[in-house]
Amino acid sequence: MSHNTFGHLFRVTTWGESHGAALGCVIDGCPPRIRFTQGEIQAELDKRRPGQSRFVTQRREPDEVKVLSGFVLDGDGTTMISTGTPISMMIENVDQRSKDYGEIARQYRPGHADYTYHMKYGIRDHRGGGRSSARETAARVAAGALARKLLPEMTVRGALISMGEKQIDRANWDWNFIGDAENPFFTPDRASVPVFADYLDGIRKAGSSVGAVIEIVAEGVPAGLGAPIYAKLDQDIASNLMSINAVKGVEIGNGFEAARITGEQNADEMRMGNDDKPIFLSNNAGGILGGISTGQAIVARFAVKPTSSILTPRQSIDVDGNNVDVMTKGRHDPCVGIRAVPIGEAMVACAIADHYLRHRGQTGRV
Amino acid sequence: MSHNTFGHLFRVTTWGESHGAALGCVIDGCPPRIRFTQGEIQAELDKRRPGQSRFVTQRREPDEVKVLSGFVLDGDGTTMISTGTPISMMIENVDQRSKDYGEIARQYRPGHADYTYHMKYGIRDHRGGGRSSARETAARVAAGALARKLLPEMTVRGALISMGEKQIDRANWDWNFIGDAENPFFTPDRASVPVFADYLDGIRKAGSSVGAVIEIVAEGVPAGLGAPIYAKLDQDIASNLMSINAVKGVEIGNGFEAARITGEQNADEMRMGNDDKPIFLSNNAGGILGGISTGQAIVARFAVKPTSSILTPRQSIDVDGNNVDVMTKGRHDPCVGIRAVPIGEAMVACAIADHYLRHRGQTGRV
Amino acid sequence: MSHNTFGHLFRVTTWGESHGAALGCVIDGCPPRIRFTQGEIQAELDKRRPGQSRFVTQRREPDEVKVLSGFVLDGDGTTMISTGTPISMMIENVDQRSKDYGEIARQYRPGHADYTYHMKYGIRDHRGGGRSSARETAARVAAGALARKLLPEMTVRGALISMGEKQIDRANWDWNFIGDAENPFFTPDRASVPVFADYLDGIRKAGSSVGAVIEIVAEGVPAGLGAPIYAKLDQDIASNLMSINAVKGVEIGNGFEAARITGEQNADEMRMGNDDKPIFLSNNAGGILGGISTGQAIVARFAVKPTSSILTPRQSIDVDGNNVDVMTKGRHDPCVGIRAVPIGEAMVACAIADHYLRHRGQTGRV
Amino acid sequence: MSHNTFGHLFRVTTWGESHGAALGCVIDGCPPRIRFTQGEIQAELDKRRPGQSRFVTQRREPDEVKVLSGFVLDGDGTTMISTGTPISMMIENVDQRSKDYGEIARQYRPGHADYTYHMKYGIRDHRGGGRSSARETAARVAAGALARKLLPEMTVRGALISMGEKQIDRANWDWNFIGDAENPFFTPDRASVPVFADYLDGIRKAGSSVGAVIEIVAEGVPAGLGAPIYAKLDQDIASNLMSINAVKGVEIGNGFEAARITGEQNADEMRMGNDDKPIFLSNNAGGILGGISTGQAIVARFAVKPTSSILTPRQSIDVDGNNVDVMTKGRHDPCVGIRAVPIGEAMVACAIADHYLRHRGQTGRV
Repeated sequence: MSHNTFGHLFRVTTWGESHGAALGCVIDGCPPRIRFTQGEIQAELDKRRPGQSRFVTQRREPDEVKVLSGFVLDGDGTTMISTGTPISMMIENVDQRSKDYGEIARQYRPGHADYTYHMKYGIRDHRGGGRSSARETAARVAAGALARKLLPEMTVRGALISMGEKQIDRANWDWNFIGDAENPFFTPDRASVPVFADYLDGIRKAGSSVGAVIEIVAEGVPAGLGAPIYAKLDQDIASNLMSINAVKGVEIGNGFEAARITGEQNADEMRMGNDDKPIFLSNNAGGILGGISTGQAIVARFAVKPTSSILTPRQSIDVDGNNVDVMTKGRHDPCVGIRAVPIGEAMVACAIADHYLRHRGQTGRV
Repeated sequence: MSHNTFGHLFRVTTWGESHGAALGCVIDGCPPRIRFTQGEIQAELDKRRPGQSRFVTQRREPDEVKVLSGFVLDGDGTTMISTGTPISMMIENVDQRSKDYGEIARQYRPGHADYTYHMKYGIRDHRGGGRSSARETAARVAAGALARKLLPEMTVRGALISMGEKQIDRANWDWNFIGDAENPFFTPDRASVPVFADYLDGIRKAGSSVGAVIEIVAEGVPAGLGAPIYAKLDQDIASNLMSINAVKGVEIGNGFEAARITGEQNADEMRMGNDDKPIFLSNNAGGILGGISTGQAIVARFAVKPTSSILTPRQSIDVDGNNVDVMTKGRHDPCVGIRAVPIGEAMVACAIADHYLRHRGQTGRV
Repeated sequence: MSHNTFGHLFRVTTWGESHGAALGCVIDGCPPRIRFTQGEIQAELDKRRPGQSRFVTQRREPDEVKVLSGFVLDGDGTTMISTGTPISMMIENVDQRSKDYGEIARQYRPGHADYTYHMKYGIRDHRGGGRSSARETAARVAAGALARKLLPEMTVRGALISMGEKQIDRANWDWNFIGDAENPFFTPDRASVPVFADYLDGIRKAGSSVGAVIEIVAEGVPAGLGAPIYAKLDQDIASNLMSINAVKGVEIGNGFEAARITGEQNADEMRMGNDDKPIFLSNNAGGILGGISTGQAIVARFAVKPTSSILTPRQSIDVDGNNVDVMTKGRHDPCVGIRAVPIGEAMVACAIADHYLRHRGQTGRV
Repeated sequence: MSHNTFGHLFRVTTWGESHGAALGCVIDGCPPRIRFTQGEIQAELDKRRPGQSRFVTQRREPDEVKVLSGFVLDGDGTTMISTGTPISMMIENVDQRSKDYGEIARQYRPGHADYTYHMKYGIRDHRGGGRSSARETAARVAAGALARKLLPEMTVRGALISMGEKQIDRANWDWNFIGDAENPFFTPDRASVPVFADYLDGIRKAGSSVGAVIEIVAEGVPAGLGAPIYAKLDQDIASNLMSINAVKGVEIGNGFEAARITGEQNADEMRMGNDDKPIFLSNNAGGILGGISTGQAIVARFAVKPTSSILTPRQSIDVDGNNVDVMTKGRHDPCVGIRAVPIGEAMVACAIADHYLRHRGQTGRV
């Protein structure tokens, strides 16, 4: 709903900055008697952890999650059972190098929120991006791990489908390849790995950065979640994805392509299936019609801009109004879009979990 | 926030279906002492009114707005002054032809919300799309007319920039042409009119339909509105635009293009201006950095899918599970994207007005 | 949640002033397939209608409700079936005497919101109390009529239990007497009628006014509604009751009496019943323990202050800062508490309906 | 707004149980550039800390607060300056005696939420009351300490005015006595100390418990905060106070007394003061008219029921439906109302801070 909370019945509030003592989230409204383990949440967090390849920032953070409230331990001493009260999770910041931020503290980095923070608050925490740090997304991923538990039959998976000028070949799509040890890019196309690797090495060595497009697919979502025109399921998915740092665009189903084609081409025709459910002959709608899920796979894509922290000097100003040239040093990802994959999954999972509870509340039909 | 309300401090609740007695909205949280006239609101409504050219539906609706509460009349007997209490606006439905919906009532039209409504509610109002009708958007436009009043220095304008396969030439962009009597398309490019007209005539005669892309530009928005990662200004604009029927994608600034370029290309460099404000050398960010307005023009685009109601028969099923062929008769727009322009303007205006009040509440800085 | 909306899943937004064209409410989140008639809603409204005895204001308002959206008509042409979309209800103002408010417009009436409206908004609609008018409560009663439909097994009834210095004898409590034609006071004690009548005649003839205490009892509410410490069911009932004009205190169960007694006296002991449900040996808790319903009757009381509009001149100031004496003329109730009975019922019904949906959403257990 | 969050712009979310690792709160929406120290927050927490006299529970908890996010340190290394992002505060649980809860785990203690938790969630954390533990209130007090900072000219103070059958003498009211080392009761009446001490010793020795009434007074609150009928300032204060465990009634100003007197007696007359502000000749309204603050002292009272944990056996049932006798052992307060004083202060301070921001947002007038 508001400044640092999202969701309506499955409500996630996150807190914390890059360089404070810790960061975390509070999940309010989780149903009781949901069973989960700290290990399951940690596994999701480990997906987005930096320091796993040369293509992501070298900051060393274990990102170890602690679950502080909202559960009782099962007899096995490991399984947590939600009690229906707020679940608080915390991740302590370990690798806070006390580096000299002197210059950056007074300069507005182009493409960063430095200037706008200052215009809004009249003060800013310049260390590591403050609230806009990619570290904050750990809290989202932890929340998403729990959201997945609400719909056990649901699978939410993400893939990087393009990086700068390079794209995957959809004909090679293999979900199983995404978790592969030889895949540092979350790409579903094995053939794309060397292409992306070469390309990104070049970008990295040039001190540059590049954007990416991520696709999230949620399967096993029951029909009926969402609402006709406000709180549409696609609207809330779009809102959740746009809340991720550096995201500049969102599409559902065929997205902008829908604007280019005709009604005949775009319509997802239906035939009756054998299991009393319709079969859709295509899925241009991305699993959502009139804001409500159809039972097909829900498909969303989002565009991540290139990291603004680059080694090439850029023109800017400082807090005193002087013209300056800014060059960002320090640990940064040449393509932040890579690590956005598990974050996008988490945000979609949270949106669906929230609508699952809302649908149950209003209609009693789940 | 929720099912049929959007906004947090400037809060709009809409109600009504295509074929009920009326539709309307309640605006809660409007500041007191805002001066407006019924004529100003009507002028916005008239922009989206059907029946104005052969390219939009022929349904004849005067769409006359009545303001029912939340104001006192000024001495001139015309100017309304808001009192700070809820402003209720109503538009009566006049042209409700009692046509035979018999067949449609039992069929699920492909691309429509018929099936999903049924899966969600177990009941649906099949007349004219029910809640998903384009008529509901009149309430949004009325709300947007008021939202504009909160920031008198702000201008929010929209333009259709592509229709199906046809695009405008941005070199010809002329805001003044949009309200021109010879412009039935909200295009900013005079040269595009015959192109769009021929193209859409063909579409219409073929009983087909086509999508469109709309661009909304808000100028005069002060720096500082929004929030770093949740309730980002771009997030709330995206959410508001995605809440419009048939919208399948949203972009801010250069949008998906940002995913294709490098950090050097994407950074909006700054120099100090003479008026103590920075000059941005480009606006790839679309006026928003880190979720907060920069003071530059805010730029958003959205994709509207082709109308699902077409004359070409499509495969579908009915409520009893029979395979059927569906063909929609009746009054329909070959390109609903045209009338989405004033709606998009209204939704962006509402998002900004809401954040203007939120910013003032938290920081006291406006 | 906010300025003019209450409820979370059963969400009621009201609008309108005493002297505008109309007033009404929008109910968002009502479950689909709830059956109701305009007559049922009107019957609730008629309970609070002024002009029914010499003890309530003589303003003549038919208070005829129109349901504008959110339903389809059943085959009988009378029964409305909710579709799950917003239900808009409107009541037109008929009896708006164009009396001279000249003096009142510039004076701050003691005990009224005149001064505080001015301090908040810098403007006020002085006609008939503006938004604080008792007429606004018609919208609440209409909403409450619908809320009752969500829990058909629930009965919510109210009674006036004291008026100024006079109290009922609880030994005479008879719910059936409340709707009796000879009972203008909503008292459950037949013997109290002549006492209240004499007392109030004296008050009225003296140009004075007097307060009252109302008790609301909701039976048939399932155990499990509410939440432990925030959004407690008793908290939301108290909030809803305190939102009624002129209410200065609220109690749940034995209320302030609980502060005077010991733990042994206050504990509601339990024994196992024959129907697998516990029997509570008392109900000091008023049907709510730890914020959650026990299945017993829910009992709430609220205190209504005496009407501030009285004929005796009172010292005050005017908008220019002059000392003045204020005497209110016009139509006013000597005891507004009388008509607060159906309003209190409606507000309790709405709180319970909202929690019923919230409980179903979070737990799936209803 | 909802389950574990209160406030609209100054929004407090609390989490944690009595026997988990920690408890805490997240404050979202705090204005930027508010200066505070950990010591100031700790000082408020120390007021409600158990183990300070023989009249409160002997559980030893240091209740040391840690501020984890949302601030930058000032140059002095001690003063925290809010950045406008979420402020997370945590209090670790230290004294979690691993006592045997075996019997209690299966019994429903009368007056406790045991039965209702079970009915709601189908599971409960029986250790120390779970979420309903008095320990949770530490988070509220921490939030209240920050809320006070938003209105530096405001003073919010509380006093215990009755305990069971014993009452203070208001003629002896001395705010300065409340913090006195010889005052274990938060009473403003020095003469009441021996009376309350004797009385409570008797209650304690009898293994019994007793209720209390608390009065909260907020001075220095500007006129204009609140709203006419929903989100009334008194409504939100009442809601906040009713959210405290064991509270069964709330009054504003003269409260239930208002129901007993006439309009002439109840009206707070006004005269013009020398400072361009009105002087109110009384304050029956408790500083709030029509839901909006008058600028007078805001006065609220609430009733706390006797602790349900008593040594006298009470009839009850267990989870298997057996009739049992329940007697609570362990550390418990004979009068929980005593420690409710700083909690009540905090909840009133939070309500006012929230409305201060909301008023500024809507009207720009503060």
